[in-house]
Amino acid sequence: MSSTTGRTRSWWGWGWDEEALTGPALDGVGAMLAARFGRAPDASGHGVVDPVDPHAVEVARPRVAAPRHLAALTSEDPVDRLRHGHGAAFRELVRALHGDVPTPPDLVLRPRDAADVARVLDWCSDAGIAVVPWGGGTSVVGGVTPPVDVGPVVSLDLEHLDRVLDVDERSQHALVQGGATGPAIERQLATRGLTFRHFPQSWEFATLGGWVVTRAGGHFATGPTHVDDLVAAVTAETPTGRWASRRLPGSGAGPSPDRLLLGSEGILGVVTEAWVRVQPRPRSRASATLAFPTFVAGLDAVRAIAQVPLEPANCRLLDPVEAALAGAAPPDGRRTLLVLGFEAVDGPLTERLALAIEVARDHGAEVLDGPIERRGDVTGAAEGGAGAWREAFLRGPYLRDAIARLGGVAETFETATTWDRAAELVATLRDTAEAAATDACGGALVAVRTTHAYVDGVAPYVTVVAPGPPSAAARDRVSRGRAQAAAWDAVKAAVSDAIDAAGATITHHHAVGRDHRRWYDRQRPEVFARALAAVKREIDPAGVLNPGVLVDAAAVPVSRCDDASG
Amino acid sequence: MSSTTGRTRSWWGWGWDEEALTGPALDGVGAMLAARFGRAPDASGHGVVDPVDPHAVEVARPRVAAPRHLAALTSEDPVDRLRHGHGAAFRELVRALHGDVPTPPDLVLRPRDAADVARVLDWCSDAGIAVVPWGGGTSVVGGVTPPVDVGPVVSLDLEHLDRVLDVDERSQHALVQGGATGPAIERQLATRGLTFRHFPQSWEFATLGGWVVTRAGGHFATGPTHVDDLVAAVTAETPTGRWASRRLPGSGAGPSPDRLLLGSEGILGVVTEAWVRVQPRPRSRASATLAFPTFVAGLDAVRAIAQVPLEPANCRLLDPVEAALAGAAPPDGRRTLLVLGFEAVDGPLTERLALAIEVARDHGAEVLDGPIERRGDVTGAAEGGAGAWREAFLRGPYLRDAIARLGGVAETFETATTWDRAAELVATLRDTAEAAATDACGGALVAVRTTHAYVDGVAPYVTVVAPGPPSAAARDRVSRGRAQAAAWDAVKAAVSDAIDAAGATITHHHAVGRDHRRWYDRQRPEVFARALAAVKREIDPAGVLNPGVLVDAAAVPVSRCDDASG
Repeated sequence: MSSTTGRTRSWWGWGWDEEALTGPALDGVGAMLAARFGRAPDASGHGVVDPVDPHAVEVARPRVAAPRHLAALTSEDPVDRLRHGHGAAFRELVRALHGDVPTPPDLVLRPRDAADVARVLDWCSDAGIAVVPWGGGTSVVGGVTPPVDVGPVVSLDLEHLDRVLDVDERSQHALVQGGATGPAIERQLATRGLTFRHFPQSWEFATLGGWVVTRAGGHFATGPTHVDDLVAAVTAETPTGRWASRRLPGSGAGPSPDRLLLGSEGILGVVTEAWVRVQPRPRSRASATLAFPTFVAGLDAVRAIAQVPLEPANCRLLDPVEAALAGAAPPDGRRTLLVLGFEAVDGPLTERLALAIEVARDHGAEVLDGPIERRGDVTGAAEGGAGAWREAFLRGPYLRDAIARLGGVAETFETATTWDRAAELVATLRDTAEAAATDACGGALVAVRTTHAYVDGVAPYVTVVAPGPPSAAARDRVSRGRAQAAAWDAVKAAVSDAIDAAGATITHHHAVGRDHRRWYDRQRPEVFARALAAVKREIDPAGVLNPGVLVDAAAVPVSRCDDASG
Repeated sequence: MSSTTGRTRSWWGWGWDEEALTGPALDGVGAMLAARFGRAPDASGHGVVDPVDPHAVEVARPRVAAPRHLAALTSEDPVDRLRHGHGAAFRELVRALHGDVPTPPDLVLRPRDAADVARVLDWCSDAGIAVVPWGGGTSVVGGVTPPVDVGPVVSLDLEHLDRVLDVDERSQHALVQGGATGPAIERQLATRGLTFRHFPQSWEFATLGGWVVTRAGGHFATGPTHVDDLVAAVTAETPTGRWASRRLPGSGAGPSPDRLLLGSEGILGVVTEAWVRVQPRPRSRASATLAFPTFVAGLDAVRAIAQVPLEPANCRLLDPVEAALAGAAPPDGRRTLLVLGFEAVDGPLTERLALAIEVARDHGAEVLDGPIERRGDVTGAAEGGAGAWREAFLRGPYLRDAIARLGGVAETFETATTWDRAAELVATLRDTAEAAATDACGGALVAVRTTHAYVDGVAPYVTVVAPGPPSAAARDRVSRGRAQAAAWDAVKAAVSDAIDAAGATITHHHAVGRDHRRWYDRQRPEVFARALAAVKREIDPAGVLNPGVLVDAAAVPVSRCDDASG
């Protein structure tokens, strides 16, 4: 729980305890929300609540004990179990804040290598114990939350598999263990002047294996930003053997094995290592911030820029509310902002940025800031609107925790759609979120941005902030947390139905987990669902890996068949 | 068999009868080979042979008759069945040339729409009749060849599903039927100024559905050239229902359904339509031809250009033999050629080309030709080395047919590997092919080029030409054809073992089919093979779709299970 830097991971909320909003910053958020909603966010009148001391939370004794050969990997510590009892969804963390963690795992197991992972899977398969693979615990969709009604559950924490094992500089590949976090990967690559250049919001805490199985999206708006396109080969331990692919650039030999593990969300295997693409650190950056009279005009410009294609590293459209939340609002507070940035290992970017600005101007943009061009090691650097936005992006989850403590509701959702439906979808989502949040909580602040711009479509991302629901007033702590969570669940159900009705995806990069199952089941081809369930039964016949995620495949007909005919 | 343009598809060889080499052109190839090998390519002394008249070939009566409701789709014509009895591998066409087609399908069925496809699958599943989906019949790996020992077989020819059904210009997507060929797609898109820009060598004859299920590679060296990256959604008919995905740009909801159909080679379903990416026709092109003292120096330059990344449309490295075959050899005939080209919808390419040339010069290149820059509708246009190479590329299969008729052996194979192993792999493949062909045929001409250049690796492509084996001398026609085929099979086995030993892929874009099974089974993860077989059993429980390709999944344990417990 404590890091080498002396910081402590929050047991209930995001990231580091030391980074949480406190004092005047926290009070300022409360005052801002009170001004916006005409009342304090906390309907109970308790004001800011402190997280429950996890040592004071009652945790049931483990229903199972690890066998002797796994004892050295095993933790029964109640606080450790509480920490592994939830991911990072608002609906979970607001309950954890109040000491309400309904399904802590019975044990936390920390393998030291792939062989340990295989041993754990063997034991759990034989004993019928559910295994929830755990990377950084940053899932916002219930992907790492121990399921109910499946008996004993162990959380398999990959934190010891944190190394870069090999680098092939000629092919620009690195072999990275599944439990390595963003900082661990970058630190080990930096000594060779290389970068993985995969920066999702979870970067500081999440792991390569988690990104692979959730098809994570990095924060770059175009180009190779999805982990799907950054993976060259994957090795996973499964309950029935090791699944290891070769590095075969562009291979067309049958369906891609890697593409079946990408997005498998821990139901097929545990990623122990992967060859990933790395690259020299960028040394040129050019950026600008522009303003549009309307969000729709901005969308048109983003489409035109993506379709040239100009491939900006950053191409984020922020509506006025989002721009204000990010502290990057234009003076009048009514315009849509476009944060535009280009990156290259070397060489001038002036021409591409100038062309992008020209395209944006054709759609009514005014340049607020830039163009700024920078040389040198620019990894992680950003200035102007891009800098403000990046800082807000990384601080976002801490702000969400603060609003939870203030008694309010704050969460995000995201999707993707083709350009022909983009403007209409954004309007629908904004209206639906606002109506549902107002209905549940009596007020709503809805902010929209786009995160990724493709030649053929775009990924809208929506933040909803609301005061706590009236149902959270004057009750015990656990009930208040549950009321806050339930208010969000109502909003989420409404927007998810709207996403499905619009033919968009229930998730662009947050994954499916347990929370998106209802809508995922509607959008995926039914025949494919049967295919995936068949794979699940074949690879994990005991059905122990992350049950309830993606598919219901507990039937295990093959084993039953063996029984019946044996 | 006859087209609207009055040309006739060859029943045994590649493409159009009217495009085959004849007269002085054919004699010239014979003389060239005789000069190179010190003897006529035909070991039998028969000289040039004409293809057997298909009407004179004895074809067994169909073992099965179509039910009445499918009669209108059904052909029992013996020549039609012979034409559908083989693909376009040398080992098949050289036998067909001599009237030797061992497994013609019992029937050829031509559905008019997706509902017809479903009806055919229903009938075949119920009756236990194998179905081989047929696009252009251009498989060079036995992917469309009716298998032996499976009882009755029907060939499912998609030629009537040849339309572009819809275009979403805003998202740059087109909905195209599975049986549409390259020219059919481009003709229908051209009216809107759009192009699919997918130009594999099979372009004129192969179909969208075939490309999807074989993960076809277009002829562009970098960027979105694989059909994998050009597909936005796929609809397939399977024996157990329709598999239809949504268009969801960048969606991270579970493993990609499309990526499981991509490369499925007809064993899971029949692609009836797909949304594909289209784009405005390019209006700028810049190209140059360069020469390197060695192939290894050229490989280093290609790697450096790919890793900038400069993303040239064309970046083909031709060794001296390949350059000579392509009619683009540098004056001294000893140097390696690099054909370099850039394309854009609009705007100057001078800077990118100049940078690529600079990078190549750093690796010892001399500019032979260009830079040439062209504006206007450049779709399909090319000049200089690129023009000569493109023409030779499209004529290649006709040359192969000519060599078959001359009694010789001519075929290609391809692979892909990471950059760290590229130079060594090319040397090994050249040596292995030369030794094996010399051993089997007493002489060999081996030409190497690269077809695709990735940031992390490269796809080498090897052409082998040899005189006919001594075993083909003075025997009947069928035996001579079989001896020619067997000579190639020996070469192919040797190079395939070398590819596997080097850790490379058995196919970059030719697919697996039946001919690559032995090596594909070695390279894929064993756990993935079990997963794929499980999917096959679930989706196609009767095991009727393209049996023998990719997996052996005839066991159908689920049905047996139902029987045992019922």
